[in-house]
Parts: sequence; C-alpha cells; structure tokens
Amino acid sequence: MARPWILEYDDTNCTIGAAISLIGDKWTFLVLREAFNGVRRFDDMRRRTGAPRQVLSGRLARLVAEGLLRRVPYQEHGQRARLEYRLTEKGLDLYPLLVSLMEWGDKYAAGQAGPQVLLTHRDCGAGVKLQLGCADGHVLESPRDVTPLPGPGARKIA
Amino acid sequence: MARPWILEYDDTNCTIGAAISLIGDKWTFLVLREAFNGVRRFDDMRRRTGAPRQVLSGRLARLVAEGLLRRVPYQEHGQRARLEYRLTEKGLDLYPLLVSLMEWGDKYAAGQAGPQVLLTHRDCGAGVKLQLGCADGHVLESPRDVTPLPGPGARKIA
Repeated sequence: MARPWILEYDDTNCTIGAAISLIGDKWTFLVLREAFNGVRRFDDMRRRTGAPRQVLSGRLARLVAEGLLRRVPYQEHGQRARLEYRLTEKGLDLYPLLVSLMEWGDKYAAGQAGPQVLLTHRDCGAGVKLQLGCADGHVLESPRDVTPLPGPGARKIA
Repeated sequence: MARPWILEYDDTNCTIGAAISLIGDKWTFLVLREAFNGVRRFDDMRRRTGAPRQVLSGRLARLVAEGLLRRVPYQEHGQRARLEYRLTEKGLDLYPLLVSLMEWGDKYAAGQAGPQVLLTHRDCGAGVKLQLGCADGHVLESPRDVTPLPGPGARKIA
C-alpha cells in the first residue's frame, strides 16, 4: 500500500492531539456526559460518575478554566449558596463527540435490553444520528468516501 | 430548571461509559488517530504518537483483543516478517469520534496557520462535516434540537 502522505508531516500541531490533551481522559468524558445529560450539581455528578471528590473537583476546575463549563450560583431555600456547572458554547460544541461515543457504545457495548437513551428530533420525533455531509449537500455512506488532504496548517517534516 | 429525568435512572449500563472505559485514554486515541491516518506500523506509530514502547505495545494489544485492530503480517525485502495494524469494521465505526475531535480541535485549538488536515468528499471534492440528521431526513442545527428519551435499556433506580 502507498505510504500515507501524513507521514511526511509534523504532527505537533495536530488538532486531534490538542483536543485529546484537553479532554482525553475518562473522568473528563464522564463529567461532560453528565453535563449533556443536564446534570449540573457536584453531588449528582459525583454519584453518577463515581469519581472521587478530589478528582471530580479537579476535572471541573480544569473544564471551567478552559472555558467548557461555567459556574453559576444557585441557592435552595434555607441552604447556603452553591455553584452549579453549565456548558458554554465551547462545551456544547463537543456534542457530536458525545453522540459518537454513544452511537458506538450502543452498537458494540449495549446490554441485551438495548440502549439506555434514545436521541430524537425535537420537531418530528424521528431518531437522530450523526452523519457525514459535504458542503454540496451529499450524505457520505462511509469513511472511505472521505479524502483527507493537507490543510493550511500542515508542516512538512524538514 | 427541571430536574433531568436521567437522574432517576441507573447509569451502570450507560454505553457512553462502556465506550469510554475501552477507548477513553489519551494514548488509545492517538493510536486510533494514526490508524485512521493510514499509519500501520509500530515504529511509525511510536514516532508520531510519542508513546513509550511499552505503552504503545499495551494499547495496541488491547485494541486487537477488543477487535478494533487486527494484526496483518508483512515482510519487506531482506527483512524479517513483521506485523502491521489495520482497523476492523468495529474500529472503522469510530470514525465519527475522530472527526468530532478534529472538528472541535480545528475550531478551538488550531494554530494561526489553520487546520493541518482537510476532509473532502471523494466524489465531489467539497469539504466534509459531521452533522446530526434524523430518520425523516432533516438536518439538525443544534444539540438543542435533540430530545433525549429513555431507551429500552433504561433502568429506574429502585
């Protein structure tokens, strides 16, 4: 087979690598999953992710520092003020990542009973799936229909 | 805000969690990235991911054991037979995951020069993007257009 062109290029500015170094960690994924589930409170996140308190605090602080979550104060009657966590636009833009994990997990890791969550189109109720589409309006059937090309930031290895 | 319905449900059979426990690790992502780049050989993977030899061996062995990669022998003239790594269908099904990482990274972590790789439609050359589509043929503009519902595998907390 032909040697892939990417081997001629430097990978230090790979944006997949950059994304992974920020969020490529089991606990961070679980925190993001809960944020997309609408779970906003520390104790709920802790119970659902099973993350130790310190680990969860650390991951939340990093996600806030990187601008994926923001802290919003809330107060329940008779209790002290607390903070909850909400996704920012930067965080919401990770939605396809979470959906892709869920679709793959539903296909390969769901129990006999089937998936736990179904995604439906709010307007028509039909099931929702990720798909690859091109700017000319085609829907691609397979990764094999994609041709990767060097982009403006590609740097040849000297 | 309304308490999210998912808090009433057990998360132990969450398929996102299952997917994460298998692949939610920085090195595993980098190995998968290289596999999708067409990089098949241990030494090329090692150079491009920066993974220590033992770490890379371990991640590759796990991906083979889980059926995401398969080992294929090859032999170059005058050298001993070696193994290269190719994605299986189960591995190829992670393509949307990698594309979602890349799109997010391109938006939030690309350098001034721009993205390193462009994905184009093989047939028409137009740029390729992930999108959410529904079974009735609509393209969804935002995560807010998705309504998550309990699926057949959802289990209420007792």
